Amino acid sequence: MLQFSLREMAKFLSVFSVRNLLVLSLALNVSLVLRVLVSHDSQNGSFNGFFIEKQNGPQEEAHASKGARLSSSVSSSSSSPLTTAQGDQDRVINLDHGDPTMYENYWQKKGDETTIVIPGWQFMSYFSDPRSLCWFLEPEFAKQVVRLHKVVGNAVTENRHIVVGTGSTQIFQAALYALSPRTEAEPISVVSAAPYYSSYPLITDCLKSGLYKWAGDARSFSKNGPYIELVTSPNNPDGFVRHSVVNRSEGILIHDLAYYWPQYTPISSPANYDLMLFTVSKSTGHAGMRIGWALVKDEDVAKRMTKYIELNTIGVSKDSQLRAATILKVISNSCERSDGEGDSFFEFSYHLMAKRWKQLREAVHQSGLFSVPDFPPQFCNFLNRVFEPQPAFAWVKCEGEIEDCESFLRGKKILTRGGKHFGVSPKYVRISMLDRDKNYDTFVERMSMIQS
Amino acid sequence: MLQFSLREMAKFLSVFSVRNLLVLSLALNVSLVLRVLVSHDSQNGSFNGFFIEKQNGPQEEAHASKGARLSSSVSSSSSSPLTTAQGDQDRVINLDHGDPTMYENYWQKKGDETTIVIPGWQFMSYFSDPRSLCWFLEPEFAKQVVRLHKVVGNAVTENRHIVVGTGSTQIFQAALYALSPRTEAEPISVVSAAPYYSSYPLITDCLKSGLYKWAGDARSFSKNGPYIELVTSPNNPDGFVRHSVVNRSEGILIHDLAYYWPQYTPISSPANYDLMLFTVSKSTGHAGMRIGWALVKDEDVAKRMTKYIELNTIGVSKDSQLRAATILKVISNSCERSDGEGDSFFEFSYHLMAKRWKQLREAVHQSGLFSVPDFPPQFCNFLNRVFEPQPAFAWVKCEGEIEDCESFLRGKKILTRGGKHFGVSPKYVRISMLDRDKNYDTFVERMSMIQS
Repeated sequence: MLQFSLREMAKFLSVFSVRNLLVLSLALNVSLVLRVLVSHDSQNGSFNGFFIEKQNGPQEEAHASKGARLSSSVSSSSSSPLTTAQGDQDRVINLDHGDPTMYENYWQKKGDETTIVIPGWQFMSYFSDPRSLCWFLEPEFAKQVVRLHKVVGNAVTENRHIVVGTGSTQIFQAALYALSPRTEAEPISVVSAAPYYSSYPLITDCLKSGLYKWAGDARSFSKNGPYIELVTSPNNPDGFVRHSVVNRSEGILIHDLAYYWPQYTPISSPANYDLMLFTVSKSTGHAGMRIGWALVKDEDVAKRMTKYIELNTIGVSKDSQLRAATILKVISNSCERSDGEGDSFFEFSYHLMAKRWKQLREAVHQSGLFSVPDFPPQFCNFLNRVFEPQPAFAWVKCEGEIEDCESFLRGKKILTRGGKHFGVSPKYVRISMLDRDKNYDTFVERMSMIQS
Repeated sequence: MLQFSLREMAKFLSVFSVRNLLVLSLALNVSLVLRVLVSHDSQNGSFNGFFIEKQNGPQEEAHASKGARLSSSVSSSSSSPLTTAQGDQDRVINLDHGDPTMYENYWQKKGDETTIVIPGWQFMSYFSDPRSLCWFLEPEFAKQVVRLHKVVGNAVTENRHIVVGTGSTQIFQAALYALSPRTEAEPISVVSAAPYYSSYPLITDCLKSGLYKWAGDARSFSKNGPYIELVTSPNNPDGFVRHSVVNRSEGILIHDLAYYWPQYTPISSPANYDLMLFTVSKSTGHAGMRIGWALVKDEDVAKRMTKYIELNTIGVSKDSQLRAATILKVISNSCERSDGEGDSFFEFSYHLMAKRWKQLREAVHQSGLFSVPDFPPQFCNFLNRVFEPQPAFAWVKCEGEIEDCESFLRGKKILTRGGKHFGVSPKYVRISMLDRDKNYDTFVERMSMIQS
């Protein structure tokens, strides 16, 4: 069996010529050019972001913003900087969803170290490791998850089971399924302290499950009996470090640590909870992979989470797990061999986030109409310095008489997500800090010029 | 913007040397060798297959079959053919799940035409085409789906929306979500004629949804009001062509056409239903990709299916969609340029299935203890010949006094899925016909020697 494989390997390598590679790369690059053109449209506001139903659907909005798009795409190809800036004033900036396209620059500079190559005959089976508790988890991905947590020091991996999911969204549902009691007649209450991630209530209640049910703000939760509390730390949308707030004996905790990475917040100690969720979307920027993972202390909980993912999607894309493994490996390598010249992924992204938060605070100050949270500085064991959190989202408040901040900013062609989706006042909006440079720069410039 | 991309393209290509490629390919091939070793264990019965809970969990069974595994792996490395055959008698053959590893040989022979290369900085966004109804659907994948259906002639794609899912399992749930009435107090009944796919009831009821509820065999369904009927054609487990059986005005149909491909059944005409499900797992053999798709006539249904996948997993792996697009393209190419020398994917797989069914019928005849269905021959428009269906699963009946066929075969170290999981008598079992040659050959040889 082994001999056969080695012979096939040699055959495979001998037919893979430079010409073949060029053809493949060129095909991918042609698709990139198309993608750039499409995403240009996207940046101009022809899509509404996911999860939140707006007054106009994507189709209607695409139609409504056609004029703006047209003027923008004409001006950006052949005009002077002045007319481009004028065109930019009409451009819709969509910061409603947290699409992490900011990270593209870093990965582009890393070059082919991050490229994956998958021959058509590999990874065809449903199974990754039939003997493993999570039988669809690629061993190489699991290895790189453990390594990265050790390098960064943001989570304890000893005596934990790893369960992989199609993004942390699926992993979250797997956790709800695994933690819901099977013997209760009533669904278990699911709570989180407001402002909470706007998708939690929608996901929890979308199928009207008899196992679990959204029960709102954890701070006002008073029902007796078992409950599940979601603790997102740092929190989405406001970026603050969080702890559980209900604190009753029958509570079960899920810790969503999607943003507990050193570009967003100081790493004070390795997180050491029973059930912790992570995702590549926010840590590395690869949202398109749809890969998340959980670190799970209890074996039976990990088994039931695996069972949910088996029932829901019969496992998780092998291709994306392999790609994620490569990306995580490159990050760990970049941290270990960093020579201080900005090669480290977290140094790069830390500095970019620091710059963006500085820009935003200046714009908010200049405008005088808004406020953003102040965070206490803390020492980061990984970056070995003291800094203030610089979250992936800005939680902006309209000061003064503006009651609906989302509508107000939509009038300025800035699309955001309003406070009511997060269980709080519409005076707040959540704004993505992870968009491409061009969009982010236009956004802060526009914010700075908004006067009452 | 375009200029910038072209410059980056040139830079990207210039750094991608033959040496880099070799390193990447070698890394993948090392992982293959490990995989072959792991799957060797898997073939020896250390995993139970998904969806069906057996008396022993995977861990227990792995332990129970340790002796058999040990003797097999010792004998296969250094013994004569005779002792290897003896070792094979002890080997557990797991044909419980339909893992399509049979197809690996074809894809191995196709070589690098099927290989994908994805640089680390591409396909990072959540979005594939923000203007599309299904905003996470890769345009190239959609294009190749339409092309393959046209080449094979197995489904109408005109005036259809394509929705991509994480396997057809997720697409099935998206369809249930989309078709369930929002105004009813009671969940809608979901039915299918027995024997039905064993996962349908488990998936439908796993979250105790208030939207839909499994209601069993469609033939005995008598409740008034709206219902959803699942029509799997050719049917899993028994391979017969199916039509809806309830036929009442308030019925909504989902057609699962996972097996409507010419290696399994004659293609009599392009399927032309309102909602049709397909998957790469059974058509091309790439189960590890987790890619399925639906062809949907009604725009609102397609929108709601997209919404479910947004809530469930925020879209579908871009990497696997790109890989699937490449695989589908190679298949269409192979059909169009086929010179009759077996290069065509469907010619290859048709002949392999024909050979396997011939082997099975001979073994069943020789044993005298079992029966398999007879199928009426039909003309296939694609292969341009008359043949009998040769399904992906064999639906085997234990004749005579054996009441529990699954237990009986487990005693012979053949793992199958018993009739009760499909809503019928335990005298039946479903057996996968898609395993690797070595396992399949051992299975038919063992079947032929079973005497009462």
